[in-house]
Amino acid sequence: MRDVAIIGIGQTAVGEHWELGLRHLALHAIQAALVDAGVDRVDALYVGNMLSGELTGQEHLGALVADFAGMRGVEAFKIEAACGSGAAALRLGYVAVSGGMADVVLVVGVEKMTDMANPHTTAALAMAADADHEAAHGLSFVAANALLMRRYMYEYGCTKDDFAPFAVNAHANAVNNPCAMFHNRVTPEAYIRAPMIADPVNLLDSSPVSDGAAAVVLAPVEWARRLGRTPVRIIASAVGTDAVALHDRRNPLFLEGAALSSHRAYQQAGIGPEAIDLFELHDAFSIMAALSLEAAGFAAPGQGVRLALDGEIGLQGRVPIATMGGLKARGHPVGATGVYQAVEVVQQLRGQAGANQVANARVGMAQNIGGSGATVITHIMESLA
Amino acid sequence: MRDVAIIGIGQTAVGEHWELGLRHLALHAIQAALVDAGVDRVDALYVGNMLSGELTGQEHLGALVADFAGMRGVEAFKIEAACGSGAAALRLGYVAVSGGMADVVLVVGVEKMTDMANPHTTAALAMAADADHEAAHGLSFVAANALLMRRYMYEYGCTKDDFAPFAVNAHANAVNNPCAMFHNRVTPEAYIRAPMIADPVNLLDSSPVSDGAAAVVLAPVEWARRLGRTPVRIIASAVGTDAVALHDRRNPLFLEGAALSSHRAYQQAGIGPEAIDLFELHDAFSIMAALSLEAAGFAAPGQGVRLALDGEIGLQGRVPIATMGGLKARGHPVGATGVYQAVEVVQQLRGQAGANQVANARVGMAQNIGGSGATVITHIMESLA
Repeated sequence: MRDVAIIGIGQTAVGEHWELGLRHLALHAIQAALVDAGVDRVDALYVGNMLSGELTGQEHLGALVADFAGMRGVEAFKIEAACGSGAAALRLGYVAVSGGMADVVLVVGVEKMTDMANPHTTAALAMAADADHEAAHGLSFVAANALLMRRYMYEYGCTKDDFAPFAVNAHANAVNNPCAMFHNRVTPEAYIRAPMIADPVNLLDSSPVSDGAAAVVLAPVEWARRLGRTPVRIIASAVGTDAVALHDRRNPLFLEGAALSSHRAYQQAGIGPEAIDLFELHDAFSIMAALSLEAAGFAAPGQGVRLALDGEIGLQGRVPIATMGGLKARGHPVGATGVYQAVEVVQQLRGQAGANQVANARVGMAQNIGGSGATVITHIMESLA
Repeated sequence: MRDVAIIGIGQTAVGEHWELGLRHLALHAIQAALVDAGVDRVDALYVGNMLSGELTGQEHLGALVADFAGMRGVEAFKIEAACGSGAAALRLGYVAVSGGMADVVLVVGVEKMTDMANPHTTAALAMAADADHEAAHGLSFVAANALLMRRYMYEYGCTKDDFAPFAVNAHANAVNNPCAMFHNRVTPEAYIRAPMIADPVNLLDSSPVSDGAAAVVLAPVEWARRLGRTPVRIIASAVGTDAVALHDRRNPLFLEGAALSSHRAYQQAGIGPEAIDLFELHDAFSIMAALSLEAAGFAAPGQGVRLALDGEIGLQGRVPIATMGGLKARGHPVGATGVYQAVEVVQQLRGQAGANQVANARVGMAQNIGGSGATVITHIMESLA
């Protein structure tokens, strides 16, 4: 097993890219990552994507993107784990480089969601839930999160308004990220007045439907050093899963998949949550941010919202989250999100996060979730500068 | 890098399983493979599947199948490479075990295609082609193969009837495979009279729309030997890709992706095509069988059909193909096919192929193709008995 580094990163702005197809979005991110890494050939390409078939009529993205990016012939597959597809692709790239099967692996996450009318997109996203036992009864993905949020408020005695800091923090950080979809600040008052989508989930609890692509280049740490790069090392890569349907879980308010994934990652890295300088979590909905903080050990069950209310999730807080805007305000092109998270952790660890730089960031964690907690992939990275 | 063995195999019959869902089909194959392997826990589960989203409204198969199979918590993803998805999952399982990331990996290929009306299935299968530049113009996947077959007849001066041996051989072998979809022999005369689907591709040139699941258990060879098993060793695992759209290829009649994949596999195994005792190729259409034989070095360009006409593809021939019925007559549940092929090679190498046993089979090759040649995954296996 070899130490693996991220030696290059690239991303497109997240937004509505009606003028670009899937392959063009992927290409832009790939070209930026290859230039950043200073390499012009790779041994394999893994593409994270969830909805290309349903929303654009295109499966078989591996070969398609490889050819379009000038890499015809190279090993290439699409990896899918619902909204966790991006980090799933990163995980398998890590496995290939770590085990010695490949020296340089390119991982790209890409999603194109805005070409279809919204009812269709909502139905497509429900494929992350249990088709036979949830979606068949009309449960949309937003509704699943609404059930969790309502239950959280009931069990832990907090109010809807208590969730405001998640949206406020994410939007504040997105203002300084040129690749973020939104550049508007929101206030607690705006949060309280935001239109309801699926009670109690309102517009500012929800990440937006978006297009985008992000890419990273992986290589052995030794190899990267020979190139004269200052790499970021992946010190943990771990996966945990849980039941897909909410009603099949032991305790819907405790994300066992996330706890398992985090625990395995901490064990592999030989550290605990106190050593994490920033945590790019999966804030597809405010409730997911709260539950992730709890499952990963940053707050006791029921205290995730309290951590946010206490101001501890900001750039100067104890656990900075969504430092470049998060899923909420950078945007959430679902199959690309896990790679965006990795790119942003690398930006922080390189000291390239601009106005959003977390001071003295040495160790960062990215956690990407598929479904409402059924597939959870955690990566911990360390600066070698 | 460790030597990797297949220590367990399982499969459902291929057919129309209207009473079973995706997760049930997967479970049946998994249970059989685990019993065969004599293990009750695995480190990871990789699911090969192409069309679960489009045809059953279910993505996120990794966690879903893991939970249903009693493995909640385990690392699990879906891998997609069009009709090559099954072998793509096998490839990534091989990478994980070989590199030391996992000791026991379960690979399951599953597809459920018969619940939807056929026009919808045909449209879904076209997602293996280039959505923007082929499917958008109305090219179905059968039509793509018809273009190739017509061009082959024109370039090499052979007739439609010359393709009969592929269907005759596949159906003859399927008769003795209890898991095959078809158990009827066909004659050259029946082939000539078969209804045309997309001229010159007729009904007996085409693999059927099917449901099915197959599974294999991977482990290090040393580990398998300690268990007292007589494993089948994977001596090569290789991938090659090409342009997805036919018009983007240098020569549509030469499958460069397949040639690359085969060449890489031969190099890894240190052997050539003359050492292969049987070749489970991707006969989704007769023309694909001919082109695969040529790309993998068993026949010169234009001579694949000749090899079949000379009787060399039968169980006693120089290159036995479709020994358990192939995609044509065992059936082609697209994302499962690559795993069925691996299961059948193992059956042959263990001497468990019954009436279809290839005499003295020591080395077998399986080649799974995504699209009309854009993703090609080759595995070569060797008996350690």
